[in-house]
Amino acid sequence: MGRWDPDARGRLERAALELFAEQGFADTTVPQITERAGLTTRTFFRYFADKREVLFSGEEELRERFIEIIRTAPADLTPVQLIRHGLEAAAETIFQPLLEYLRTWRAIVGSDGALRERALRKQELTIEAVLTVLRERGTDEPAAEMIAKLSNLVLQTAVGRWVAQPVAERPLVAFVEEVFEQLRSTVAGEPVHR
Amino acid sequence: MGRWDPDARGRLERAALELFAEQGFADTTVPQITERAGLTTRTFFRYFADKREVLFSGEEELRERFIEIIRTAPADLTPVQLIRHGLEAAAETIFQPLLEYLRTWRAIVGSDGALRERALRKQELTIEAVLTVLRERGTDEPAAEMIAKLSNLVLQTAVGRWVAQPVAERPLVAFVEEVFEQLRSTVAGEPVHR
Repeated sequence: MGRWDPDARGRLERAALELFAEQGFADTTVPQITERAGLTTRTFFRYFADKREVLFSGEEELRERFIEIIRTAPADLTPVQLIRHGLEAAAETIFQPLLEYLRTWRAIVGSDGALRERALRKQELTIEAVLTVLRERGTDEPAAEMIAKLSNLVLQTAVGRWVAQPVAERPLVAFVEEVFEQLRSTVAGEPVHR
Repeated sequence: MGRWDPDARGRLERAALELFAEQGFADTTVPQITERAGLTTRTFFRYFADKREVLFSGEEELRERFIEIIRTAPADLTPVQLIRHGLEAAAETIFQPLLEYLRTWRAIVGSDGALRERALRKQELTIEAVLTVLRERGTDEPAAEMIAKLSNLVLQTAVGRWVAQPVAERPLVAFVEEVFEQLRSTVAGEPVHR
């Protein structure tokens, strides 16, 4: 345990997620996490400020990758094409491989009010980051705000439905497309079946 | 102070909001609030669990009023007509008279990460309440989710622009209509000016 471990962070994350899922977030302590990971408490605090941060530390990297997709998208896309391009690419390259992780993560976060609040705040940071890159691309301000917020709405809705599938039959990108179609028909004012 | 005060709650809310705005949320204590309101700390805790709750206790009533508007809306509206009807009525009857309050409230909440998280969670509760009433009206599930989320997006965007006006020239309902138009043109894929 004294030697440098190239995957200490990953081991701590996996141990924490297992314990949160097994016995609940509130009832899990940092010593329990480090014991399961076979690491010291001191190592834990080298990577995370507290047990809550284990659930959110990876988000910044995901956000950066998502922003990069939007930054490098073709310049001639209309706003809705840009969101669609960005979300479909993100679904395939970023989120699809994380299905099991995200399913567990959402169940843990959904079970605790304070974690839920933190997750919503992280969504807002993503909206702000998208807004920044849209401004850099020259999109005007009110349009950029609308695109950034809609992209969050579509992504969150699609991911929610994707992880709720009892068997993971359909890929996330299919849900993204479905939510886009639903957004389009709702906003166009088409009547829905009751 | 010993006698029953019919507006104790309102006095505490006003005193708290003034102090939060003047000296910051973090630096304001419950005794300072009660001193300014001319009431006792004991009275404060009869109404609020802590100083944070002063900023959120009124939201439940606003949410109930908003839900009632949707509950009693004509049955033959399409989803987008229903959101529009609900938000325009809410803008005029619920929010318009609260301009100064909401302006101060948003500045205070925006200045503190934990308050921001709590405010986002309250938005989510509103989305869930709208979802429930839509189900009662017989709207099918995926459509109801989309409508509830879009109504939150439109309302938050419109309120943000409304309170940001340096002089309150235009009513909230005008911003609601403008945001709806922007939503429509964005989703329809119309190019925007750069």
